[in-house]
Amino acid sequence: MTDDAIRARQRLFVSDPITPGCEIELAPEQSHYLEHVMRLKPGTPIKIFNGRDGEWLATIAHLRKKKGTLAVDRLLRDQIVERGPMLAFAPIKKQRLDFLIEKAVEMGVGTLQPIVTAHGITDKVRLDRLHAQVIEAAEQCERLTVPEIAPPVKLLDWLSDWPENRHLLFCDETGSGSPIGEVLSQLLAKRAGSAIDNVNVVNHAIVIGPEGGFSADEIERIRKQSFATPVSLGPRILRAETAAIAALSVFQDRLGDWSKTPVTRDQGKPL
Amino acid sequence: MTDDAIRARQRLFVSDPITPGCEIELAPEQSHYLEHVMRLKPGTPIKIFNGRDGEWLATIAHLRKKKGTLAVDRLLRDQIVERGPMLAFAPIKKQRLDFLIEKAVEMGVGTLQPIVTAHGITDKVRLDRLHAQVIEAAEQCERLTVPEIAPPVKLLDWLSDWPENRHLLFCDETGSGSPIGEVLSQLLAKRAGSAIDNVNVVNHAIVIGPEGGFSADEIERIRKQSFATPVSLGPRILRAETAAIAALSVFQDRLGDWSKTPVTRDQGKPL
Repeated sequence: MTDDAIRARQRLFVSDPITPGCEIELAPEQSHYLEHVMRLKPGTPIKIFNGRDGEWLATIAHLRKKKGTLAVDRLLRDQIVERGPMLAFAPIKKQRLDFLIEKAVEMGVGTLQPIVTAHGITDKVRLDRLHAQVIEAAEQCERLTVPEIAPPVKLLDWLSDWPENRHLLFCDETGSGSPIGEVLSQLLAKRAGSAIDNVNVVNHAIVIGPEGGFSADEIERIRKQSFATPVSLGPRILRAETAAIAALSVFQDRLGDWSKTPVTRDQGKPL
Repeated sequence: MTDDAIRARQRLFVSDPITPGCEIELAPEQSHYLEHVMRLKPGTPIKIFNGRDGEWLATIAHLRKKKGTLAVDRLLRDQIVERGPMLAFAPIKKQRLDFLIEKAVEMGVGTLQPIVTAHGITDKVRLDRLHAQVIEAAEQCERLTVPEIAPPVKLLDWLSDWPENRHLLFCDETGSGSPIGEVLSQLLAKRAGSAIDNVNVVNHAIVIGPEGGFSADEIERIRKQSFATPVSLGPRILRAETAAIAALSVFQDRLGDWSKTPVTRDQGKPL
């Protein structure tokens, strides 16, 4: 990496297309953040990505009174497809939900699906807040994409409207399932005979219950679905956010992008 | 489970030996918590454990002015050995450290080892606070033991004073290691020829760097150790607490107590 790329400590998600030499207009909050929180000046290098065009080095061209523009310099990393599984979760208390979201992004989740369940603490999800959190976490963990956020849906409606080739890993806290790692390696092994392409990680959704657990009716409904496999997350009672992170970790290890050759970061190219 | 065991929603760690019919004196904070926070009355059933004698059903016998006693009723779960790996971590910011500790306990960590590193934000660890957090998390996740907390130690001293049969999984964020899951399954496979009994989970320590990462010197020192294997935690940059939870999840899945037949909780006996 060159000096200016190393000096670029800030990394921002932008929505505009990024092309060599183009100018990017920052959102007012981004300009405010760079000017007043980070106290940066025009001329400072910044990394940017938009989920489509890879990661670029840019320079602050103008920054004043909540208005900022960046001058795009050059490509740092080519865009890659970062597919991850879907995580369906019932809203939990604010601080724990914040944590769940941040960690799910770091763990490479593809889509976040809020679900409304019988025992959930609330059926309100502030989608604007969720969106801002997801972007911030993606900027921080050096993802090249931002996960999708699906509109909240009632659990039973979600199950009824199921895409043909999606598999569901049901994190069943009653312990009726086999260990999640075992289930994932069996899915991989029987790939040939299955209707679902199990190797394709976007074909998997993981569902975690609310703090109070799923209701007996909900558990029965999920278990009945031919696309659902109940899995166990060990002998301890995990909080909802712990279960989400742990299930995503094992998923990425067994099926996802942790199973691939690692990135070597000290050779200069972070990809 | 009988009615009174189901009604026992509080679960407390006590240090005294537990025997049938004995009386347990509560700590002042525990009495305060039961009386003023949970507003419980004498006669309320409570679950207790001490890490040695299993889990017991008890009843509040007396509760007034920060003094409380429990009358022990009967054994609910036999004591089991809950061995988990050691987690060595550099102190991070308060809220993130709280989270790391809570999650590590839920994930079944055996020993928590604070380490002092070059880039750590502080070399102070409040051990009393850590101890209280570990107990609270163990009470909540239904563990039968409380993890040990080792006194903070400088990273280099920790490496110099290494027990003969302990293996170190070095979570190397430069990406020099193989994927953690692959390393763990190779360790299991070559068990026969190794000096370390790799199947024994207490023979493993996992080390996670501070927010700023290990220094180049530290990385070199760890890599030099014959007992250390660098491992990769995927292509994204994980925060320290995310790395800790994710590494423990994959460890428990591949080597630890998640790989065993799951607990069935709806058959009445939580063990």
